[in-house]
Amino acid sequence: MSGNTFGTIFRITTWGESHGSAVGVVVDGCPAGLALVAEDVQKELDRRRPGQSIASTQRKEEDKVEILSGIFEGKTTGTPISMIVWNKDADSSAYEALRNRPRPGHADYAYQMKYGLRDHRGGGRASARETVGRVAAGAIAKKLLKEAGIEVVAYVTELGGIKADIASSNLGELRAEAESNPVRCPDPTAAERMLERLDAVRHEGDSLGGIVAIVAKGVPVGLGEPVFDKLDADLAKALMSVGAVKAVEIGAGLESARMRGSEMNDPLVIQEKIIDFSSNNAGGILGGVSTGATIVCKIAVKPTPSIAKRQSTVDLVLREQTEIEIKGRHDPAIPPRIVPVAEAMVALVLADHLLRQRAARL
Amino acid sequence: MSGNTFGTIFRITTWGESHGSAVGVVVDGCPAGLALVAEDVQKELDRRRPGQSIASTQRKEEDKVEILSGIFEGKTTGTPISMIVWNKDADSSAYEALRNRPRPGHADYAYQMKYGLRDHRGGGRASARETVGRVAAGAIAKKLLKEAGIEVVAYVTELGGIKADIASSNLGELRAEAESNPVRCPDPTAAERMLERLDAVRHEGDSLGGIVAIVAKGVPVGLGEPVFDKLDADLAKALMSVGAVKAVEIGAGLESARMRGSEMNDPLVIQEKIIDFSSNNAGGILGGVSTGATIVCKIAVKPTPSIAKRQSTVDLVLREQTEIEIKGRHDPAIPPRIVPVAEAMVALVLADHLLRQRAARL
Amino acid sequence: MSGNTFGTIFRITTWGESHGSAVGVVVDGCPAGLALVAEDVQKELDRRRPGQSIASTQRKEEDKVEILSGIFEGKTTGTPISMIVWNKDADSSAYEALRNRPRPGHADYAYQMKYGLRDHRGGGRASARETVGRVAAGAIAKKLLKEAGIEVVAYVTELGGIKADIASSNLGELRAEAESNPVRCPDPTAAERMLERLDAVRHEGDSLGGIVAIVAKGVPVGLGEPVFDKLDADLAKALMSVGAVKAVEIGAGLESARMRGSEMNDPLVIQEKIIDFSSNNAGGILGGVSTGATIVCKIAVKPTPSIAKRQSTVDLVLREQTEIEIKGRHDPAIPPRIVPVAEAMVALVLADHLLRQRAARL
Amino acid sequence: MSGNTFGTIFRITTWGESHGSAVGVVVDGCPAGLALVAEDVQKELDRRRPGQSIASTQRKEEDKVEILSGIFEGKTTGTPISMIVWNKDADSSAYEALRNRPRPGHADYAYQMKYGLRDHRGGGRASARETVGRVAAGAIAKKLLKEAGIEVVAYVTELGGIKADIASSNLGELRAEAESNPVRCPDPTAAERMLERLDAVRHEGDSLGGIVAIVAKGVPVGLGEPVFDKLDADLAKALMSVGAVKAVEIGAGLESARMRGSEMNDPLVIQEKIIDFSSNNAGGILGGVSTGATIVCKIAVKPTPSIAKRQSTVDLVLREQTEIEIKGRHDPAIPPRIVPVAEAMVALVLADHLLRQRAARL
Repeated sequence: MSGNTFGTIFRITTWGESHGSAVGVVVDGCPAGLALVAEDVQKELDRRRPGQSIASTQRKEEDKVEILSGIFEGKTTGTPISMIVWNKDADSSAYEALRNRPRPGHADYAYQMKYGLRDHRGGGRASARETVGRVAAGAIAKKLLKEAGIEVVAYVTELGGIKADIASSNLGELRAEAESNPVRCPDPTAAERMLERLDAVRHEGDSLGGIVAIVAKGVPVGLGEPVFDKLDADLAKALMSVGAVKAVEIGAGLESARMRGSEMNDPLVIQEKIIDFSSNNAGGILGGVSTGATIVCKIAVKPTPSIAKRQSTVDLVLREQTEIEIKGRHDPAIPPRIVPVAEAMVALVLADHLLRQRAARL
Repeated sequence: MSGNTFGTIFRITTWGESHGSAVGVVVDGCPAGLALVAEDVQKELDRRRPGQSIASTQRKEEDKVEILSGIFEGKTTGTPISMIVWNKDADSSAYEALRNRPRPGHADYAYQMKYGLRDHRGGGRASARETVGRVAAGAIAKKLLKEAGIEVVAYVTELGGIKADIASSNLGELRAEAESNPVRCPDPTAAERMLERLDAVRHEGDSLGGIVAIVAKGVPVGLGEPVFDKLDADLAKALMSVGAVKAVEIGAGLESARMRGSEMNDPLVIQEKIIDFSSNNAGGILGGVSTGATIVCKIAVKPTPSIAKRQSTVDLVLREQTEIEIKGRHDPAIPPRIVPVAEAMVALVLADHLLRQRAARL
Repeated sequence: MSGNTFGTIFRITTWGESHGSAVGVVVDGCPAGLALVAEDVQKELDRRRPGQSIASTQRKEEDKVEILSGIFEGKTTGTPISMIVWNKDADSSAYEALRNRPRPGHADYAYQMKYGLRDHRGGGRASARETVGRVAAGAIAKKLLKEAGIEVVAYVTELGGIKADIASSNLGELRAEAESNPVRCPDPTAAERMLERLDAVRHEGDSLGGIVAIVAKGVPVGLGEPVFDKLDADLAKALMSVGAVKAVEIGAGLESARMRGSEMNDPLVIQEKIIDFSSNNAGGILGGVSTGATIVCKIAVKPTPSIAKRQSTVDLVLREQTEIEIKGRHDPAIPPRIVPVAEAMVALVLADHLLRQRAARL
Repeated sequence: MSGNTFGTIFRITTWGESHGSAVGVVVDGCPAGLALVAEDVQKELDRRRPGQSIASTQRKEEDKVEILSGIFEGKTTGTPISMIVWNKDADSSAYEALRNRPRPGHADYAYQMKYGLRDHRGGGRASARETVGRVAAGAIAKKLLKEAGIEVVAYVTELGGIKADIASSNLGELRAEAESNPVRCPDPTAAERMLERLDAVRHEGDSLGGIVAIVAKGVPVGLGEPVFDKLDADLAKALMSVGAVKAVEIGAGLESARMRGSEMNDPLVIQEKIIDFSSNNAGGILGGVSTGATIVCKIAVKPTPSIAKRQSTVDLVLREQTEIEIKGRHDPAIPPRIVPVAEAMVALVLADHLLRQRAARL
């Protein structure tokens, strides 16, 4: 049973390979009546697209989205929204050398053994190009959330061991600052150091990992469906399903393991007749249900596995030890580019649970 | 749309509240022909049950499981397996004071707002008692996995800031050592220090968090369903859905954010004609698919939110600031008791994906 | 992948075998706040229970339901509602002779081959006893529908070739008349003739089939989810999933194949500013979506396969031709007893789609 | 919660409107390694396409399929197969008059009320054009079934009250004879009379209904997942989800209501050591599980609702009674064109259950 569908009510199905004709997504379950134009989606895809900066690969991908169904006179109709992005003609010849030699840190070996065959060109289905569908669908989820007063912003908080010092908790500011530099870190000083380190590591033919934070404001209390489809559980799945993510934290995350109950528990307070919490170690979720406080997630992103350095691997046909060098330009770090993808995944989960909550009470 | 069902082919539905008549689970999709007796399930429930040690609460719960369906002449029949554990008559009077005063760090407030009403007695559905169903179902998953040569073991690696030094990678040894002390830590020296710290913190009316590792051996290459139902994504959801878990790591986890690609990538090697990896930073999963290497997950568990110390909260009816003291005996730390639950969740995911993989190839 | 769960938002999972310890159902997704007591469920189970009349078997089943979870202070809490009905100690010895000799018209042979083993006692999971869970869950669905002004009534319209002449379209009257005789036919004259024919056929050791109509009033326009989860498609599945059903019709059903478009199409009319249809060949559903008109379904129910007459079959172990005689008292016709089951299935579909529709519009 | 996905393991998601840019389908869960080229799909789409005969509309639709993903070097890869068929530029002006005047017998009114808005051009999502995705996906299911020795054939058995007399039970013959005439009826004499009647009714500006049989041979014993996802239940849903279908019968179907148990029950027999049934009233399914006998379904198809005759309806904006005349060429009967769609739906169900059965036994 394959797994290319995500969500229960707001539900997406993605398809497409890196060097196939196109990639795309079908969004089923978006309520009728939402104003939507291609530009809403395009602007998110543009954020995902590799740019010209040092932090990301120089490859040119235009990624122009076409909406093929589900919209009538500028509004969603409640029927499936199919979106497609054509792939540019790719030169797959460089990948021929990798056909039988799985790249370390990549899905190559596992896919080959799982399916008995695979499209090795550009990583096939396991390529990061697959996230086009996530981001396109996430753009619609974001529009839906915006109608409900919910906003999601992600940014880089650590790269190659350099930690950002982030003062603001204003989403607009965070977004603006993060998007103003190529590493998408809202701390400009740290961002500069990150860029220097990236530059250095790239010259060594190596790569760096980092940490991305995703925060959501305006989420009403009550989203999340215990005991398995808890909001944090679905967020964890959504984020861990993105390539290169190796850890997901909610609120205090790993640090909570070192706290005492009296520190960790967020006291409830009343401020101007409104119930609130005086701290947010929970990251806006208790018992798997949103509390009304800001949702805070973090993901640990491993260093780019495609590195220029020579690496050991095996030849699957000859069944002998061998080496590979991965040609081509690859991002020396994934976190900056994962930012819009992580936002999309969180938006998809929130949109789905927003609709799910409609059935929770009589 | 509620969320009390987990899994796709090997699928469980749990039910029951802490102070209701019973808790239970229906397992649908267990293949016919598996030898199964109540004792297989009981022994896992016994591991879950609070014991007499300092590390866990003194409450007496017998937790005797009855299998009500799906077994005939000692074997599963392919029909749903319904299991029930009756609750002992509980004294709910202590919870009356908490009816309108949500406990910090608990689901109380979020549930009340989500549903408009809640069973506040003993935490209701949000109680850790809910995990009885998970552990019972996990016991069946483990039997199924054992037939396929797969074993899952969990243990505490850190408690209250004390880190264990774990040398062995032999699952039998790890299990034996972990189960030999009340904190379920396979490092006896660390275990002793953890117990001391637990004792101290309990006297202060406070609690501790910690970290639990779950490892699975014998998992064949090929499990996991890209791009959303990746093995790591489903493990993240499964583990994050357990109460008190605030972070999930796979393989190198958070540390991968600080590694270089050349360190992180696990080289493929051939040893005696068998393909293997010379390191396991991936934690046995690449591209969301198992590689044949040991699966390694870690979870961060927050400190027990029920603490004796006086805490601030609000009265939901009076809508004013107030305080509560949580009576009764509560575990000063959750990690030792979460061990069998975490094992169960990982076993459920692996059993499901083992069956899902049967449809992956012609 | 097993199939013991039905519905998407209002979702039920049934379990249990005929001669096992109990049968039951878990209802997940019932909104919080619905007033519910065991008596609401019991009264439907009492309608399902075999009575003393000639039309049904004389076996005594008490079928006392216990609600084990999901209710607090008389209201649903939004958490799973688990219900159980204990089986009376059954004498399975009569079934021993059937262990290797599949009964014609029963699931015996197919189950044995599907699973490689089966619980042959009393039909095991394939017994009509399985419908206890459907009826219990349906009782809750009916309460939910009642809050929304929707009512579902079923009755026998044909038995053993005798057709009823049904004048009334008032659900209360239909229900009252149908429940006043053992064949559950609202035409008293026809009912009498049906009973005579049943009596005759029983003495011959044979059985009869019939037709049951299910009508639902008050269903709002807009329920049903094209293009696969159309309301009629889900009704067809729900009803065909009940044992002994061999055909499902919506509205004019089979007759529509012999009509002209100008006869079949129901004209839309305005009556006192309200849009309505001047006929109802569509049976209240167009394009898979309810139109606001009365929903009308019919099911064809085959004659009871358990007959006293000697029948040919095979011995699965000896692999030779043989004969069987089925002992015990069996209903000579299923339609009267299927009435509450059919109502339950239609109610479950309507409740699910009522909740699904909540997500259809912004 | 929308309903544009069908199947559990072999799972399809269709999208697209009649006058939108394209229609398409994503097939997820097709096992890797199946030989597949566009021509396999195209030949089924060609059967679906309206032709030049009297029995079908004269509209010209080319319906050229493109496979966009999931195939590599002529074989399926286990990843989603996305297929698209572009719509020809359609003139939607004729539909402008119908924007606020729902056509009797069509989904117009129900959709408008369900979603609050609708794409009225050419019927939008509710158009028969939606079946392109079903047929394309069904073509892949058929290839998968063929590998397992299963074949599905559909044909018209009744049209406008004229019943065919069908002697052969050989699928190859039935297929060849049915495809040799425009009404797809394997009885040439009846086919001729059907054509005459169609011609007559068309001149009256009216339309006819009919009955289509779908038979499947080679289905192994054991497919179907009790108690809800029974094979017959899933077939009923699949077939009833096709527009214009008003009844689904399995085996003896409606007739079983008039049979006695001794007639209806199919005796098991041994023939050359092989277990078989000496009759097939069950239609190859008992207890919801295939028996190894031929699967036999029938569907009743209502007369085409788009007729030239003037019809009463209402104006939704003016809220007053009005009339419409539906312009354009419409098939005077749907059964001939529904044949490939019905085959596709049955093939999809069988492919899904073939894969589901892989998890039924240890």
